[in-house]
Amino acid sequence: MAEGDRRQFFRRVRTTLAGAAAAVAAPAGFTLDTTKVQGAVAREYGARSRYETLKRWITPARFLGSTASWTPLGELNGIITPSSLHYERHHGGVPDIDPASHQFLIHGLVERPLVFSLAQLQRFPITQRICFLECSGNSYTEWRTPSAPSVQRSHGLTSCSEWSGVRLKTLLAEAGVMTEASWVVAEGADGAAMTRSIPLAKCLDDVLVAYAQNGEALRPEQGYPLRLIVPGFEGSINVKWLRRLKIVDQPYYSREETSKYTDLLPDGRAREFTFTMEAKSVITAPSAGMRLSGAGFHEVRGLAWSGRGAITRVEVSADGGEHWQDATLHGPVLPICHTRFTCPWEWDGTPTALLSRCTDETGYVQPTREQLRSVRGDKSFYHYNGIQSWRIGADGTVTNG
Amino acid sequence: MAEGDRRQFFRRVRTTLAGAAAAVAAPAGFTLDTTKVQGAVAREYGARSRYETLKRWITPARFLGSTASWTPLGELNGIITPSSLHYERHHGGVPDIDPASHQFLIHGLVERPLVFSLAQLQRFPITQRICFLECSGNSYTEWRTPSAPSVQRSHGLTSCSEWSGVRLKTLLAEAGVMTEASWVVAEGADGAAMTRSIPLAKCLDDVLVAYAQNGEALRPEQGYPLRLIVPGFEGSINVKWLRRLKIVDQPYYSREETSKYTDLLPDGRAREFTFTMEAKSVITAPSAGMRLSGAGFHEVRGLAWSGRGAITRVEVSADGGEHWQDATLHGPVLPICHTRFTCPWEWDGTPTALLSRCTDETGYVQPTREQLRSVRGDKSFYHYNGIQSWRIGADGTVTNG
Repeated sequence: MAEGDRRQFFRRVRTTLAGAAAAVAAPAGFTLDTTKVQGAVAREYGARSRYETLKRWITPARFLGSTASWTPLGELNGIITPSSLHYERHHGGVPDIDPASHQFLIHGLVERPLVFSLAQLQRFPITQRICFLECSGNSYTEWRTPSAPSVQRSHGLTSCSEWSGVRLKTLLAEAGVMTEASWVVAEGADGAAMTRSIPLAKCLDDVLVAYAQNGEALRPEQGYPLRLIVPGFEGSINVKWLRRLKIVDQPYYSREETSKYTDLLPDGRAREFTFTMEAKSVITAPSAGMRLSGAGFHEVRGLAWSGRGAITRVEVSADGGEHWQDATLHGPVLPICHTRFTCPWEWDGTPTALLSRCTDETGYVQPTREQLRSVRGDKSFYHYNGIQSWRIGADGTVTNG
Repeated sequence: MAEGDRRQFFRRVRTTLAGAAAAVAAPAGFTLDTTKVQGAVAREYGARSRYETLKRWITPARFLGSTASWTPLGELNGIITPSSLHYERHHGGVPDIDPASHQFLIHGLVERPLVFSLAQLQRFPITQRICFLECSGNSYTEWRTPSAPSVQRSHGLTSCSEWSGVRLKTLLAEAGVMTEASWVVAEGADGAAMTRSIPLAKCLDDVLVAYAQNGEALRPEQGYPLRLIVPGFEGSINVKWLRRLKIVDQPYYSREETSKYTDLLPDGRAREFTFTMEAKSVITAPSAGMRLSGAGFHEVRGLAWSGRGAITRVEVSADGGEHWQDATLHGPVLPICHTRFTCPWEWDGTPTALLSRCTDETGYVQPTREQLRSVRGDKSFYHYNGIQSWRIGADGTVTNG
């Protein structure tokens, strides 16, 4: 902090200190001294404090079965998203699956069709990775007129967890993939029987059949008891409640890769199978809906991620994009993983705009909204990764735009 | 898997497949097909599946206020411990603290005594790190006769989380530490007013005043709303429910560093201020209380960690310590962090013992129980880090010893 700001900051601190001293002298109304009472016993399975109220925002569903819930990015810290607040998108509700009877089938163009119970899968060599997931519809609110009222509503369809499970290539080796195979169709056990086609080459690379999330079993909203983790690919490809993989020789053009999850271009054609989530960053604090307490020192905090690898650089602008300053990346900086950045900022109290832009290890630089629209037009819904701008008002209010 | 074992494994798999086909032909008693029903709506704050029952084991308390709860390491995966299952040790119960009124004081040998509210602390630059905590009493059951009935009971007083907060050195710079200062006394707001002395040099290095754990606010059992994270130091130094740091010129010899948390040596003297947790590893599966399904392929899985830095090597013995094989370390391999290892194992069905030993980046090698006892004797309670042995019986049972 600058010296002037520090003085102002601690004037408040010292006032508080004086207040505390007064309270000691006058026990009436004094806050409970928790050292004077016996605390609670330990619990077998813990829960958060009763004072904590953070929650996912649930999209008002047009029909009950298909909705999304958004991670409150503005109030979280670090790169691990609490499992209870991991974003969710489902197309037929969250199924209630008994893991003891769940079965997972690999069939189609294989030498040996196989059915696995969860216990059988768990005997195969395990591996783990921390990686982000992002719904390709994340930030759809920003394509035409930036309109989300908060970073939760603009960018909250991404979260990051540690996933553990079996490499799909291990299971495919057991099944014996035939030479004519080129795609894999994944199917979920949910009410939508969610179905997506995945290139076989990706399945033989880094795809996981995951049964654990942040140490324990997958949460129901994240696919309990079994899901695909397809690092860097759009969320819906990471099929949840996984019950079947059919090895095939062409993509299946399911509903979720024709009428949905394609990108309409200006010339009327559609991009299809746009799997990879491009590099993206957002300032999580200060962000829309928050209010700065006043001029002086503020730390700008945010997240960056790329489906193509590690984030190598994040820059922050505090003047609407005229000047940029390198932000600090906080480790661990892992490929295809949320990466935390911070940047110090002295606010002079006048209106301005805060922006962030990231670069990934392929050299790709996050585009401005204008650059993205100049190529993709304004009819797309998915895969918006433009630079986000938060406007700071003279009164400290933060709004989108 | 070896070919013979693979055949045996999939004989069972194919039997299951035949069973499933029969079930399709006979709908009576067939498991609910979850694709035919509407699933549940999303929840604002998720919870685990109703089929999941993992829990901490709570030490039967001699008196209500002082107990411990143990992480079920045998059934967890990855390096992030779910916050609800993070181990806990408290000396006066878990206080119920309102974060809006919690205050944190830095005083003693400083130019400017300071009191912080949580909101004030959160304005300071934030940083994060993934690191393990371990109670120095972890594995005390193994000093004399190895006696814990499970890895939860032998090694479950260690867990690993991502912690976020302010570097203590930043706050100490604000307070202005006087030149004669050399120690810091930390005090908790719990019923024990838990008090520990910490060398100032450590406080000026990598200590965090943490307010977040795995993304969200600290859990009550882990110090809500504020705790110290003192990377690599024994658990009780990481004072929870932190309310006060007094900067002083000598250690204070509180109860928890005299009658407790010292190590009685064979000559009657006691080691004191034994802060750093030495390198340690344990096989989490198979481990005591589990039972192998039969001879053939099994994957040996475990955790290793060191308070002195990163784990560089883990070796596994499947013959009671005669021969050792390098295990695979799974990334990320971070300093002062749980590190996951796995090792393939073909069990021939005869009785044997499984052991693991780790090496850290300082070159320190985890000692055998005999090596440790030859130096420290058998009167110690804390800081047991000997090699753990799990006996495999001919019937597949796994026991301690």
